[in-house]
Amino acid sequence: MIRHTVAFSLRHEAGSPAETAFLEDGRQALTSIPGVRDFAVARQVSPKSSFRFQFAMSFADASAYEAYNAHPAHVAFVEQRWVPEVSEFEELDFEAY
Amino acid sequence: MIRHTVAFSLRHEAGSPAETAFLEDGRQALTSIPGVRDFAVARQVSPKSSFRFQFAMSFADASAYEAYNAHPAHVAFVEQRWVPEVSEFEELDFEAY
Repeated sequence: MIRHTVAFSLRHEAGSPAETAFLEDGRQALTSIPGVRDFAVARQVSPKSSFRFQFAMSFADASAYEAYNAHPAHVAFVEQRWVPEVSEFEELDFEAY
Repeated sequence: MIRHTVAFSLRHEAGSPAETAFLEDGRQALTSIPGVRDFAVARQVSPKSSFRFQFAMSFADASAYEAYNAHPAHVAFVEQRWVPEVSEFEELDFEAY
């Protein structure tokens, strides 16, 4: 099991309709992809980091993760929404120790 | 509920007894502190990040988180183990959106 996470900030104003739309559309687009489990949207609240949000999801194995990355719905979301609307991000992936 | 996470790397060689000792001692020290829930140790496995591990834990609220930060067992762990043995780290805290 791999927990894939990406912390990010948006170019949109905090609390704006565009911010809400990005988070909701992201959830809808990414949870439509086979293999995505336990999708979660969170606010990043530590003042020690400038990231504002996080998407997190689990994959059963590396094969499911790779299929997600290559899936047209993921590629389209990255190109059409992520690149133009996200100002900074960081990906961290976890496996139980 | 706040999910407190810290991704980090150690000065120790990968797979070394010192690495194992840090992870096990960290778990023991931090889970002894009141208010710490669902403590987890994970490997960070994304090649897009240089962090190697993560400690994660949940707190019921900001008050429990502050009590943890100020607790002598946390302060001692940071001073005696974290500062000398950790080479890089990043804290991210999450609340459900």
